[in-house]
Amino acid sequence: MKIDILTLFPEMFTGVFGSSILKKAQEKEAVSIHVVNFRDYSASKHGSVDDYPYGGGAGMVLAPQPLFDAVEALTAGTERKPRIILMCPQGERFTQRKAEELAQEEHLVFLCGHYEGYDERIREHLVTDEISIGDYVLTGGELGAMVVTDSVVRLLPNVLGREESHVQDSFSTGLLEHPHYTRPADFRGLKVPDVLLSGNHAKIEEWRRKESLRRTHIRRPDLLEGHEWTKKEQQWLAEFEGDK
Amino acid sequence: MKIDILTLFPEMFTGVFGSSILKKAQEKEAVSIHVVNFRDYSASKHGSVDDYPYGGGAGMVLAPQPLFDAVEALTAGTERKPRIILMCPQGERFTQRKAEELAQEEHLVFLCGHYEGYDERIREHLVTDEISIGDYVLTGGELGAMVVTDSVVRLLPNVLGREESHVQDSFSTGLLEHPHYTRPADFRGLKVPDVLLSGNHAKIEEWRRKESLRRTHIRRPDLLEGHEWTKKEQQWLAEFEGDK
Repeated sequence: MKIDILTLFPEMFTGVFGSSILKKAQEKEAVSIHVVNFRDYSASKHGSVDDYPYGGGAGMVLAPQPLFDAVEALTAGTERKPRIILMCPQGERFTQRKAEELAQEEHLVFLCGHYEGYDERIREHLVTDEISIGDYVLTGGELGAMVVTDSVVRLLPNVLGREESHVQDSFSTGLLEHPHYTRPADFRGLKVPDVLLSGNHAKIEEWRRKESLRRTHIRRPDLLEGHEWTKKEQQWLAEFEGDK
Repeated sequence: MKIDILTLFPEMFTGVFGSSILKKAQEKEAVSIHVVNFRDYSASKHGSVDDYPYGGGAGMVLAPQPLFDAVEALTAGTERKPRIILMCPQGERFTQRKAEELAQEEHLVFLCGHYEGYDERIREHLVTDEISIGDYVLTGGELGAMVVTDSVVRLLPNVLGREESHVQDSFSTGLLEHPHYTRPADFRGLKVPDVLLSGNHAKIEEWRRKESLRRTHIRRPDLLEGHEWTKKEQQWLAEFEGDK
């Protein structure tokens, strides 16, 4: 996979893209990531990329020319149409399903504004996807592009090692994870549940399933919808209901 | 405000915390951010921070000792109880309201795991908040801690300059933003709407309100609930309904 990131703050990306899984993924050539300053594509003498809004108002607006030219230069000659992704609060809410969809692509291009607005012609005629990582305001699109990149790249073949891929992620099982414990069995008087020290694997599995269900019931009841439950699981759910 | 970030990958934070608004906020002393490798607090000879899970299973679990000791060392002597925030997918979904709440605090401590689980005693007896930035899987809590830090720090007094603070953020007005346009009025045949070039400020304001409502209606109808609408706005909403 190829990923181009268009930003006015390329230096923001060095730490995240140069560490851990994203670093390894690039070393293994599972992905090639380029961070590009789109000011370099400005046709103006002074490298201007934004301008005042038509109709008045405060704040600046990113002009169409530098972003159109940058995207065209970076995607010229690609056979399969790349996904051009605008990071913005008005976008579609990012989810694990979207990460899985994007992981099938060959080429992703991210556009990151930084507190400016985007000229509407960029949205309408250049981008294929508008994505928001959540209902909160950030100082720019850069962190969003890092989040989406991280979640997509970890899904690519051969990226996660054996240890990392053992993460039972909450969104693939459909329930929140059960509690984990490690040594010591007694930490400052706080003890590990006896069942986990019992060696009885059937009981341990049952405890884990129940606690996973309990946590989901308390924290994210929306995730319980659309499952088929065993008789025992139905009893547990009734029991949690009674605990309220 | 003081922010401590506990991580095994401190180098991930340099780019984001050393650029743009977060850099300026630290220079202005609105916030002081420390990124701490909690491996330094391990009591074991080899700096171990994780161990196998009790009850078996794949993957590793972060042990209680290094994180308890690190948090206690970093928060010793603070008068007001700090918020100890665990970044994890099972946490409370992060929102702008939560950012505003955290912006009132004096001291935030973030715990970032990296594909390991957390010993349950950390959740139950050390942390005050568990936060998830969205329903997607990341390789670690680091990006989440950056996202929360960015959204909180930009709310602190004197952090945003005049330009940045003019962002009409979607979550403070309760609606998505109207479209923006800047020069040129004709870009490759793509034109700016006439009304924005008219100089008629009342008409421009009306157009903007209508387009803001239209975009919210199409993309985030959930945000329309709980508003009081003028007669005109009710007509617009009925018109959008008819467009479907």
